[in-house]
Amino acid sequence: MKFTCNQQILSKAINTVSKAVTNRTTIPILKGILLRAKDNTLTLTASDLDLSIEKIIETHVSEEGETVVLSRLFSEIIRKLPNEEITVELKEDNNLTIECSSSQFNIVCFPADEFPNIGEIEEKSKLVLNRELFKEMIRKTSFAASLDESKGVIVGVLIELEENSLNMIALDGFRMAVVKEDMKNSEEKKIIIASKILSEISKIISEVEDENVGIILDNKKAVVILEGTRIVLRLLEGEFIKYKDILPKECKTTVTLNKGDFLESIERASLFAKEGKNNLVKLSISGNDMTITSRSEEGNVKENVMISTDGEGLDIGFNSKYLIDVLKVIEEDEIKLELNTGVSPCLVKPIEGNQFVYLILPVRLSGN
Amino acid sequence: MKFTCNQQILSKAINTVSKAVTNRTTIPILKGILLRAKDNTLTLTASDLDLSIEKIIETHVSEEGETVVLSRLFSEIIRKLPNEEITVELKEDNNLTIECSSSQFNIVCFPADEFPNIGEIEEKSKLVLNRELFKEMIRKTSFAASLDESKGVIVGVLIELEENSLNMIALDGFRMAVVKEDMKNSEEKKIIIASKILSEISKIISEVEDENVGIILDNKKAVVILEGTRIVLRLLEGEFIKYKDILPKECKTTVTLNKGDFLESIERASLFAKEGKNNLVKLSISGNDMTITSRSEEGNVKENVMISTDGEGLDIGFNSKYLIDVLKVIEEDEIKLELNTGVSPCLVKPIEGNQFVYLILPVRLSGN
Repeated sequence: MKFTCNQQILSKAINTVSKAVTNRTTIPILKGILLRAKDNTLTLTASDLDLSIEKIIETHVSEEGETVVLSRLFSEIIRKLPNEEITVELKEDNNLTIECSSSQFNIVCFPADEFPNIGEIEEKSKLVLNRELFKEMIRKTSFAASLDESKGVIVGVLIELEENSLNMIALDGFRMAVVKEDMKNSEEKKIIIASKILSEISKIISEVEDENVGIILDNKKAVVILEGTRIVLRLLEGEFIKYKDILPKECKTTVTLNKGDFLESIERASLFAKEGKNNLVKLSISGNDMTITSRSEEGNVKENVMISTDGEGLDIGFNSKYLIDVLKVIEEDEIKLELNTGVSPCLVKPIEGNQFVYLILPVRLSGN
Repeated sequence: MKFTCNQQILSKAINTVSKAVTNRTTIPILKGILLRAKDNTLTLTASDLDLSIEKIIETHVSEEGETVVLSRLFSEIIRKLPNEEITVELKEDNNLTIECSSSQFNIVCFPADEFPNIGEIEEKSKLVLNRELFKEMIRKTSFAASLDESKGVIVGVLIELEENSLNMIALDGFRMAVVKEDMKNSEEKKIIIASKILSEISKIISEVEDENVGIILDNKKAVVILEGTRIVLRLLEGEFIKYKDILPKECKTTVTLNKGDFLESIERASLFAKEGKNNLVKLSISGNDMTITSRSEEGNVKENVMISTDGEGLDIGFNSKYLIDVLKVIEEDEIKLELNTGVSPCLVKPIEGNQFVYLILPVRLSGN
């Protein structure tokens, strides 16, 4: 194998695929990047078995071939070279030489045939999504997925294709995010993708210039197709909770308020909210006034937020972290809260439409 | 105590003094900031006993008094309040109320009389330094001081006033930094300030607008005077090494080279330099060519740097970290290295003048 490539282009490609490299693996070859030079293109591939990224760049190939290089070392070498032509050549005994300007490196490689095959996928159904929309939907849901790997599919985000909408749903047992986008779909489908994989995908699609992202779905895998980049990911298998059933259908109290003011007040109140005490903040809703209070041995705080209320007043406690997480991803200036009692879930919704619903379980206040 | 103050001004003042707050103390009151309201000024003071910072801001004081607030909590509360007027009032039982817009906080305070007195200092001799120059001299020396608290005064930087120059010197047993600035001084003096305190001072003087920094020297303390800010610091006591005696007076080989090229080559070579092996890189100097080599079980590297040599060629090994640290703080494009043998110290100097000298001990190469 021998190819010549510009330093900037090669460095950017390494940066993309290395997002799939894990250092927590016991399989040494997974710390590597597969380099395959053929037909004047270089294909770089990295994989942690759950997520694989393949990037194709144009290069001058004078000898076809393939090998696997240690990702960390290769990436640092290429990054620190000057912006000039780099010549990479595989010599005997799995030795790779990298030459650029006045630098010459020799690095030890792994045989390419030990690298896992990331596999092909049959293009049965392809979903085309606007890149910015997909990123936004990931941002607005993935934070709510469980971080606890033992909890099964709820470490993932459910992507649900319905006849007239694309829905993304995540939950962790304490809160739930449901985001909806109007879209005609020829077939209904549900897949679950691990939240941390979606976050990596979000980073990768931020770096490309494609307007749309193609997603090919299979039963066990999905492939995200971008210009020059292919991301193959393993789907989570299992039954996702029937989320529609847990969304309350009615509410006794609706509160309309300014999201920015509410977020700032909750953030200040949370200065006294302690993790050991569920980060408890108490909301007291009465007429056009909401007071938010919190206390610890260090002191206490009382915040007033102007609201408009439709229905009965009530007192309710929340883990401030869950409120803050939700309010931070909402872009709308005005939102509404739908409440029933001090021990029933609270919904956070837009004033109009159904593009999102967040559900947050309350923390029981002593005395309730 | 009761005062009213703008949020931005108070927040900035807290940020300055909190640099002297340590969380690693067993004395609870040192986690606090002393607030003293008097004559329409608020004085904020924090101290870790080695470093004390006092900041005076104008406020409207309606009741004089003093108290001590927990730095972390007070700082977060004030930072998160809107940019409006804040009213702070000390109530009974060491309770402090903070009111701003629709927020009301109560925090528990410490009695002010338990706070250590940072002390006055007699203005025997005052040194006036240009702020940017002082910051530069700190940046160019403090990295070379020892990090090992058990090593006595070498955790500090020696500041030496000579008749015609101000010198700053730091060393850690493996390398030494000597920086010199021409300056007339009426008296000769030597003080040693802990490197980590100098780094804090450097941050504080970056935030002010003063052109000059006044330093009042005492035997055991120094006070840095800025507009509205006073920094009192404990000097390190002990005899600093006679650094002039360890600078070699002669050299057999002088190498002149481009600093940027040299730094980049050393950084690339250091990718194979391992901490367990002293980060070893080997320099082979011969005529107009220097080759830098390094190897590990992962591979090896050879870098060529164009140089001009006056004297004999030689091979010498270095801990790449020490070379990189020095080359990063030097601004000059061209520098010279003065060498004797492969086991004697190397000096890094400007092409002309004596504004800096860095000494680096070599690592013995196997076979030397």
